[in-house]
Amino acid sequence: MAQQITEDEDYALQTCLLGVANILIKVRERELLSQRLSATAADILFLVNAMEEEVTPTKISRMMLRELAAITRILVHMETQGLIKRTKNLERKNQVRITLTAKGEDARTHAMKKQGATGIISTLSDAQQKQLKETLIALKEAGMKELHLSPKALIWP
Amino acid sequence: MAQQITEDEDYALQTCLLGVANILIKVRERELLSQRLSATAADILFLVNAMEEEVTPTKISRMMLRELAAITRILVHMETQGLIKRTKNLERKNQVRITLTAKGEDARTHAMKKQGATGIISTLSDAQQKQLKETLIALKEAGMKELHLSPKALIWP
Repeated sequence: MAQQITEDEDYALQTCLLGVANILIKVRERELLSQRLSATAADILFLVNAMEEEVTPTKISRMMLRELAAITRILVHMETQGLIKRTKNLERKNQVRITLTAKGEDARTHAMKKQGATGIISTLSDAQQKQLKETLIALKEAGMKELHLSPKALIWP
Repeated sequence: MAQQITEDEDYALQTCLLGVANILIKVRERELLSQRLSATAADILFLVNAMEEEVTPTKISRMMLRELAAITRILVHMETQGLIKRTKNLERKNQVRITLTAKGEDARTHAMKKQGATGIISTLSDAQQKQLKETLIALKEAGMKELHLSPKALIWP
């Protein structure tokens, strides 16, 4: 019985965490609406800009823990929007390189200025933010272990 | 410049939170694979079981902060799997009532026993869990305010 209650509490906390993630995504999608950008597309713009090495769809899918097919769909759409360029690697023809266009760079800068979602985080005190970060890192470690992946596979935090 | 750094830290923490949410969903999807159940479908089974009042697709979409069209698609699929029943309200014909079938009830019980995702939460100490809960509640309040929604619209925590 005590075990049952503990499990339910863990489940409640998990629901809570996923719920807050959902709220943040919702706020983010709303603030990006005028740019016709999804939260994932904005994250891809940031990621491509932040990565120093060559960016491929496979790397993006690994870092975002998303299926390659889903990422490819989003990338194709982003290319039709003129935000990125997908260039075939001349040596390894099955590889595609992703780069930002000037329009993509511009969209990234604009998306970065939208502060609805980060504004929610900033309502927390510094101490709360520090604790939250530590807890999230611990959860990341435990979660990646459960998935048999190295925590280093994800660049954050 | 200091402002810029603060914003970047908030964005990093947001990425961290969404990343952990992603890991939990990934673990959940993996453990539910043998039941051919998505994480959202499992949540719907829990929600329909937990709600005492009449459950409609609109209520589910509100509580899960998901678009009605997306929830309807999932519900239609769950009905073909024999997990739920969608019954037309005889008085208000545009309303559909959702109930669990015996198979759905069975799937809910099984899904509840899978502990990969909740196991990740339970690696945290009691104090960490308590802090995390408080922080998530604060984020929920701030987020729902940003969305101009009442925090009471969501039943958790």
